[in-house]
Amino acid sequence: MSKFRFNITMTLDGYVAGPNQSIDNPLGEGADHIHDWLFNLKGFREIHGDKPDGETGTNDDVFREAFANIGATIMGRNMFGGGPGQWREDPWRGWWGDNPPFHGPVFVLTHHAREQLVMQGGTTFTFVTDGIESALKQARQAAGGKDVALGGGANVAQQYLAAGLLDEMEIHLVPLLLCGGARLFDSLEGFDIRLEPVRTIEAAGVTHLKYRIIR
Amino acid sequence: MSKFRFNITMTLDGYVAGPNQSIDNPLGEGADHIHDWLFNLKGFREIHGDKPDGETGTNDDVFREAFANIGATIMGRNMFGGGPGQWREDPWRGWWGDNPPFHGPVFVLTHHAREQLVMQGGTTFTFVTDGIESALKQARQAAGGKDVALGGGANVAQQYLAAGLLDEMEIHLVPLLLCGGARLFDSLEGFDIRLEPVRTIEAAGVTHLKYRIIR
Repeated sequence: MSKFRFNITMTLDGYVAGPNQSIDNPLGEGADHIHDWLFNLKGFREIHGDKPDGETGTNDDVFREAFANIGATIMGRNMFGGGPGQWREDPWRGWWGDNPPFHGPVFVLTHHAREQLVMQGGTTFTFVTDGIESALKQARQAAGGKDVALGGGANVAQQYLAAGLLDEMEIHLVPLLLCGGARLFDSLEGFDIRLEPVRTIEAAGVTHLKYRIIR
Repeated sequence: MSKFRFNITMTLDGYVAGPNQSIDNPLGEGADHIHDWLFNLKGFREIHGDKPDGETGTNDDVFREAFANIGATIMGRNMFGGGPGQWREDPWRGWWGDNPPFHGPVFVLTHHAREQLVMQGGTTFTFVTDGIESALKQARQAAGGKDVALGGGANVAQQYLAAGLLDEMEIHLVPLLLCGGARLFDSLEGFDIRLEPVRTIEAAGVTHLKYRIIR
């Protein structure tokens, strides 16, 4: 059966971005090295259209598994970017240039309606204004039996965790203390979320922790 | 060289205790299962004077390593217990009965002076009112060349992390989301704390993550 899966890099102290995120500094202050384990992987370079040299090995295997069999992606407005509020006249088209690394349908949760954006390489951004359940329903239909990926960020992940809609979560835990910023696990007081460990993989600079979320 | 080491069990969302800690519920609400990996270990039972049957294997090995070569222990007043404020006339003697599991000198950080407490089995509780550096100095002297253990809790750990005084930290990461309570990594905004991974061990119900703290 197709799954709704979430992959995210998190520091040991629970942050997925630093403080004061902005257009110039989308990951926030001090978070430059959070994704160091990722950028040089062969698989990462491939989906970003970069030169396909790069590291192979355990981290690359984990990365490829995370992106395999994904038929659609969901993300929040903050991850899509462009600042809060109404879309401007010449609106933001994402952080990723003309050929984003998703190569399939992406559903962006926002309070502000906007027409679908068709990019190169198969990526489409569809803007969903009627909530997380609607986004998941649309993503499942678009995925055609493949898995749906939750792209992030923290706020949207919290909403899906609280609603009990995620099937699987893989935390790429990096040995950093950010000491401030956006926490992945926040605003979840009162929710009973149960995890079942699937596997732990230790690799260079990161520990991959995969969990099934029990309904 | 002797080290100042910290071992602590933490949930995936960063908590070491639940909300509303009290004398009746020292670990706070919802935290009953945080230490499940620990209680049935042969090594844990031995230091608590329980029947020495119990589980051997990876978790027991990690537990024994954590307690090996410890010459003295430091803990905060909250971990020692008895509620905040002045000591009462018939003062609290710890959570652990007449024969606590430390079997050596323990230094309790408190704002309220009190005479040393001598327990059975080699445990002494010395109450330190002049700060974390003094407690560490006294513990090092008492340890006679062995390592010093930081017992907890979160608040004292944060003070030692912020002061750059810890040498090593092992997080026993359990697959639970507590969604509230006492976070291990909190109140550390503005501190530059660098970690170097030593090892990761996956075991039944827990992932053991050991880090060196770089000065």
